[in-house]
Amino acid sequence: MANRVEVIGVPGIPNVNNGDDLASIIKAAASGNGIDIQENDIIVVTQKIVSKSEGATVDLNTVIPSPFAMQIAVKYDKDPRHVEVVLNESVRIVRMGHGVIISETRHGFICANAGVDASNISNADILCLLPKDPDESARRIRADLIKQLGFNVSVIITDTFGRPWRHGTTDVAIGVSGIEPLKDYRGLVDPYGYPIRVSISAVVDEIASAAELVAGKVDMIPMVIVRGYEYKISESSSISQLIREPESDLFR
Amino acid sequence: MANRVEVIGVPGIPNVNNGDDLASIIKAAASGNGIDIQENDIIVVTQKIVSKSEGATVDLNTVIPSPFAMQIAVKYDKDPRHVEVVLNESVRIVRMGHGVIISETRHGFICANAGVDASNISNADILCLLPKDPDESARRIRADLIKQLGFNVSVIITDTFGRPWRHGTTDVAIGVSGIEPLKDYRGLVDPYGYPIRVSISAVVDEIASAAELVAGKVDMIPMVIVRGYEYKISESSSISQLIREPESDLFR
Repeated sequence: MANRVEVIGVPGIPNVNNGDDLASIIKAAASGNGIDIQENDIIVVTQKIVSKSEGATVDLNTVIPSPFAMQIAVKYDKDPRHVEVVLNESVRIVRMGHGVIISETRHGFICANAGVDASNISNADILCLLPKDPDESARRIRADLIKQLGFNVSVIITDTFGRPWRHGTTDVAIGVSGIEPLKDYRGLVDPYGYPIRVSISAVVDEIASAAELVAGKVDMIPMVIVRGYEYKISESSSISQLIREPESDLFR
Repeated sequence: MANRVEVIGVPGIPNVNNGDDLASIIKAAASGNGIDIQENDIIVVTQKIVSKSEGATVDLNTVIPSPFAMQIAVKYDKDPRHVEVVLNESVRIVRMGHGVIISETRHGFICANAGVDASNISNADILCLLPKDPDESARRIRADLIKQLGFNVSVIITDTFGRPWRHGTTDVAIGVSGIEPLKDYRGLVDPYGYPIRVSISAVVDEIASAAELVAGKVDMIPMVIVRGYEYKISESSSISQLIREPESDLFR
């Protein structure tokens, strides 16, 4: 029997504002497209609408850049207030070069510009930050959805990250609720009886990437349903399970 | 209208041997599962069956480890012949530590053990290497499939890579034919009229990751059909489009 997973992009999400109830918006968008959310569906939501619903934004007109931010801005031809916001969101600079600041966020993510983003915001002076606690955001959306639907779903919040060595971005998970983020094959053997070498798959990142295929960047589809994927339900899942400890990281 | 992509794992691929015709095996496996391959389907095939069909394997009993390989093997508690094969497949060591050799292959991929793998081979002394030219492998499989089917399909060959900073592996593309590997949003504007900042998606890597969700590691499903994804057909696509040039790479 073939093993099928369906990835369904749900259009029609309106502009999200601070304080909006995302679970209701998600449910309405699905209904509006004639889609019934089903038990154990994985609801994939892009970071930006989560941040906007939580007011995780900064108005550039309120930012006073530090001398360090001004130096970087001159060197890289950037807005010093934007650089200041990126530095505020960072706990450590990992690399700077080619006009890019790659830093570690307080969540432990390593990405360009600490995830600070200007696009898709209806005012050019407003920057969008990552949610303060993306796991907590995912938990809240999931709890609200389960209350409204009466059955289990999982939630993954995604963002778009670059990678070392390879061109192009892929979407990855930055917050999870309900789904175990790693699939552990350790202790299992392959069909020939040999132990599995590559043993732990980051399934929530793979789901995030699958979702990007239907979400796109210009189509404004910030919500995707992934259906039919058999996963381990977990009430204690956290994106921190994906963050490599400094002592085992060869690329600090 | 919702935007749907279907990811279909196709079981029933037999043990592949040197010289086997993968296009015929793929077509038979689909038929055997009652699946008609459709026009513009993306056929995702894991590296191992491609390598085995091309005889890209090494018998450990034929390998004489160098003194350098022996030193590394002692330090990391590995088989020195296995280390020798990894070094032979590498053009540059990127990092060594924690029992892992991360190197650059002659294709330009940066991954653990130069992609050399022991599992899923029915003889413990046989190591599986990456295909010599995975784009050429993808082109050959695609041309054979198109000849047999009478319409266009695309082919992606995948492998399982780790990542810096994040636990868990994801599948990525190592060879492509027929599909443009990057989706370029540059010059486009978002729904508010602002230029798209994150501009180039590595869609073939996202497709590889989506495919892993149904392929798994123990289920022996080395073939996945991705259906309904709208992509740019390209007769000159190459995985080299994904390889970052050394001069723009902050993580050499």
